[in-house]
Amino acid sequence: MVSWVPGADASLFPVENLPYGVFRTAGDGANGPADGSAGPGGGAVGDARDGSPRIGAAIGDFVVDLGALAAGQRHPAEPLLSAATLNDLLAAGPARWREVRGWLAGLLTDPAAENAVRPHLVARDTVEMLLPFDVADYVDFYSSEHHATNVGRLFRPNSDPLPVNWKHLPIGYHGRSGTVAVSRHPVVRPQGQRKDPSSDTPTFGPSQRLDVEVEVGFVVGVPSERSRPVGVADFADHVFGVCLVNDWSARDLQSWEYVPLGPFLGKSFLTSVSPWIVPLDALRHARVDPPPREPEPLPYLRDAPGDPWGLDIELELAINGTVVSRPPFRSMYWTPAQQLAHLTCNGASLRTGDLFASGTVSGPEPGQRGSLLELSWGGADPVWLADGTSRTFLADGDEATIRAWAPGPGGIRLGLGEVRGRVEPARGH
Amino acid sequence: MVSWVPGADASLFPVENLPYGVFRTAGDGANGPADGSAGPGGGAVGDARDGSPRIGAAIGDFVVDLGALAAGQRHPAEPLLSAATLNDLLAAGPARWREVRGWLAGLLTDPAAENAVRPHLVARDTVEMLLPFDVADYVDFYSSEHHATNVGRLFRPNSDPLPVNWKHLPIGYHGRSGTVAVSRHPVVRPQGQRKDPSSDTPTFGPSQRLDVEVEVGFVVGVPSERSRPVGVADFADHVFGVCLVNDWSARDLQSWEYVPLGPFLGKSFLTSVSPWIVPLDALRHARVDPPPREPEPLPYLRDAPGDPWGLDIELELAINGTVVSRPPFRSMYWTPAQQLAHLTCNGASLRTGDLFASGTVSGPEPGQRGSLLELSWGGADPVWLADGTSRTFLADGDEATIRAWAPGPGGIRLGLGEVRGRVEPARGH
Repeated sequence: MVSWVPGADASLFPVENLPYGVFRTAGDGANGPADGSAGPGGGAVGDARDGSPRIGAAIGDFVVDLGALAAGQRHPAEPLLSAATLNDLLAAGPARWREVRGWLAGLLTDPAAENAVRPHLVARDTVEMLLPFDVADYVDFYSSEHHATNVGRLFRPNSDPLPVNWKHLPIGYHGRSGTVAVSRHPVVRPQGQRKDPSSDTPTFGPSQRLDVEVEVGFVVGVPSERSRPVGVADFADHVFGVCLVNDWSARDLQSWEYVPLGPFLGKSFLTSVSPWIVPLDALRHARVDPPPREPEPLPYLRDAPGDPWGLDIELELAINGTVVSRPPFRSMYWTPAQQLAHLTCNGASLRTGDLFASGTVSGPEPGQRGSLLELSWGGADPVWLADGTSRTFLADGDEATIRAWAPGPGGIRLGLGEVRGRVEPARGH
Repeated sequence: MVSWVPGADASLFPVENLPYGVFRTAGDGANGPADGSAGPGGGAVGDARDGSPRIGAAIGDFVVDLGALAAGQRHPAEPLLSAATLNDLLAAGPARWREVRGWLAGLLTDPAAENAVRPHLVARDTVEMLLPFDVADYVDFYSSEHHATNVGRLFRPNSDPLPVNWKHLPIGYHGRSGTVAVSRHPVVRPQGQRKDPSSDTPTFGPSQRLDVEVEVGFVVGVPSERSRPVGVADFADHVFGVCLVNDWSARDLQSWEYVPLGPFLGKSFLTSVSPWIVPLDALRHARVDPPPREPEPLPYLRDAPGDPWGLDIELELAINGTVVSRPPFRSMYWTPAQQLAHLTCNGASLRTGDLFASGTVSGPEPGQRGSLLELSWGGADPVWLADGTSRTFLADGDEATIRAWAPGPGGIRLGLGEVRGRVEPARGH
């Protein structure tokens, strides 16, 4: 499709993408950018002057202010689009999602609509992106065979690397939804207990093995009833879209605490998500068959015939600007549709705003590993950066950035945006 | 203190208790009791006719409708008390909590106030209790040494029963906040994967080892900032009060899934809480020294000098009316103040409505074990009920009830109410 928005067609946010997010512009002095660069009208094509949270869609280098546009067009979805989070839109369901997306794509490709829409475009580099939805429950899976095998070798060198249940179910656990934050939230180095193998007793202090986890997250829109499992075929009736997730991990805290009840403080200090939620509809051309599964999963976990949810998303991890890994999401063993079916098979219900993440994405090659734990092989083999320094784990001041792309129609690439965070020193206790 | 409310002084809800909850009366036809026994005015002393959720305090056999009372008294806390959940009151902090509690106790003990208060009393047996607060994050600890030792023996017979980290930190994990429900919510038997030791592959079906876990829960009122740990001495600045928790558990699902990331579907189908939140202020006389801890915990986990948070709460578990266990909360190794300090030591923030539970409470004696897993020793030694039948785990139709009491001033006993649930058969998949 051809959009009248300058540069949109050649960008990673063409009209075939149209991800949703929540933004604000300066004008709210207490919360605007400290440098004042995006003052009233500064950089904005239109008249966006308010500092309160607003729902937007990304198009090229711009954000469409959807509440204002819907009001101007007297569109019936205006109440959903004038909210401060995406939650009401998420809850509205697939028919409404498609209708809003079609309406917006129509306006952005119709030259006759330009005059009406243009006042509601804001330059993307002038806005602050906020957490796009209120997170209900956060679940993290563990669905990359290569990642689970690598971690098993590193954490449990005397056992089979893959747990015996791994190929029978998508292993997962609940994380802390209250510490999910949007990209650019500071990553304050966590403190906690760790125990060196050479010592009998633990010590307390700043983590010495702060790590990233490159993941893809799935955002639940439509809730489900208790005791009514959501089958693999019903995935797209409940899940609205996709974001990127960095599940920051303190490996030294994690390895001391995680037996027998799983990761807790090693993960709960912060989980960062990208600001733009890409609708499933935009990922139609990214769908691929997942890898062969052997043994065959139990019936409730089998791919819906002709409708599997493998996704060909290319991921990239950069540390201080040096790309250190390119994990391929298409290599994931369990699909998000299988994860959702498993999550609900015991009768657990879904709420609008539930977030579940894939688990660290690692491909079969060393350059495709989604964590520093794996890239440095437990700290034994440092990762080199372009400035000539090396890392085993993150140093104070380091910035980690995850970016991703997916194929769109006609060979174009759609961007999933980015999630980034910079490490700050531990704070006094 | 002497209350003018008939029967209150001799009850488990005297004026020294005054727990808070959310209730509604019939009148909302769609949601009222099916038998219509509590129709408009039925059983109510006063004029409560509305079917919408209201905040109340328990006094004797009555509920005080706090929103209506505060409005009638033009009390400044009226906006907090007219809400549909306790969350605003929880967020208001200790000074306001004490002020509201003092105001209410004053009215209920002042004979001159009777005429003004009496219209706002509703008979407790005519109201439906609702989930009293919106649960933010739910964390479950594992802080009974006797429980952890029993489970270690049963689940890991070839290892030391207590994990090596157990005496160094209060082990915990995040649960599913979206499936926390109030007492009397149906316990639909969960389905899921389990693997018999005699088989190489798992099967899917209704849990055959459905269990209870007798726990005490702590409700966070005042939030905390990210990267600002809450010390053991700050417990009462953040925690509002206490409820009872039944962390229903499907042992067969749990034992197959929980390595390496901890319990997930074995717990996430339902967690039940008691409807009445007892303020910490009411538990002043229940405070006791916790058991000796050896080795001494790291400094951030040491009891605040002269201010430890051991609590002498007596618990009772009944199955179909037969009391099968009396777990003593005072035997818990880690206190809730230590749990909260641990939960936040990595910089994780608190939100209003966070719920953290103690973990299963088991005392040293066989009759003090807080789960059927332990009471039946993994199914080997059935528990006998008064009707002559026996149980290893819960059967369809069984009702499990947890009740609890704590000492009040002058030798009186304060009730913590009860949490109950009846098992319903698994539903078709």
